[in-house]
Amino acid sequence: MVKKIKQINWVYLAGFLDGDGSIYVRIKPNNTYRYGFQIAPSVVFFQSAKEKQKIEKLQKIYKIGYLRDRKDGITEWVIGDEKSIRLIIENTRNFLHLKQKQAQLMLEVLDRKKLIKTEKEFIKLAKNVDRFRELNYSKKRKKLLAP
Amino acid sequence: MVKKIKQINWVYLAGFLDGDGSIYVRIKPNNTYRYGFQIAPSVVFFQSAKEKQKIEKLQKIYKIGYLRDRKDGITEWVIGDEKSIRLIIENTRNFLHLKQKQAQLMLEVLDRKKLIKTEKEFIKLAKNVDRFRELNYSKKRKKLLAP
Repeated sequence: MVKKIKQINWVYLAGFLDGDGSIYVRIKPNNTYRYGFQIAPSVVFFQSAKEKQKIEKLQKIYKIGYLRDRKDGITEWVIGDEKSIRLIIENTRNFLHLKQKQAQLMLEVLDRKKLIKTEKEFIKLAKNVDRFRELNYSKKRKKLLAP
Repeated sequence: MVKKIKQINWVYLAGFLDGDGSIYVRIKPNNTYRYGFQIAPSVVFFQSAKEKQKIEKLQKIYKIGYLRDRKDGITEWVIGDEKSIRLIIENTRNFLHLKQKQAQLMLEVLDRKKLIKTEKEFIKLAKNVDRFRELNYSKKRKKLLAP
């Protein structure tokens, strides 16, 4: 039986996402994909590696994503599969104060991604994905936005 | 009548504090103070200036602190008076996952600060304040820790 995550935990995660998280989609060149590009959505949290144990505990509450140690001393909690991204976005979006637009855009991209049938539609979606760039742009997160 | 802040808002703020906030105390040289130093506690949130309106809205929910625009494009939400610091720490501490130790230490410092009667006690407290340094140290927040 899957234990249901309490609302209080989603409210906490909404605050944590507003403060520390990033919601974005990358368009990666990849020849094995139909239109030569992969649409890769992510929700990522960033902490100093010394907080790794605490982030691991958090990850175990929500049971989504995985931890990744960067070489620069940052531990990332990466949520990259669509099912988990939907779970976190759908459950936190009503409590967000800062990243509501990114949450909305993420759900739109995930919905439209499934329906793409032509290259024209693909390009339209890719342009939409580009809106993350303006929404997310900040000095603090510059590095993340490089494609 | 003061409208009571709902628990859900404190839970959100706990997440936001864990993600974006900083809890620290500075010891500032100041000759108008008895022992030549001022003990200055703070809870601060940091966002890109382009999020200023959203942070203003948040500030209006909790009615504590003030906004400050830094020259580097960061807007700070600064909570520096002891009453407001107690309010935020006491209401968020049970929901924190990352900054529980800092919250605990802040309350200890605020409690002991009032009771200082000798220079020896002052120095002991100043040493305790120094523990924030190890708790808060991270690449991301290096700049904040300079005294």
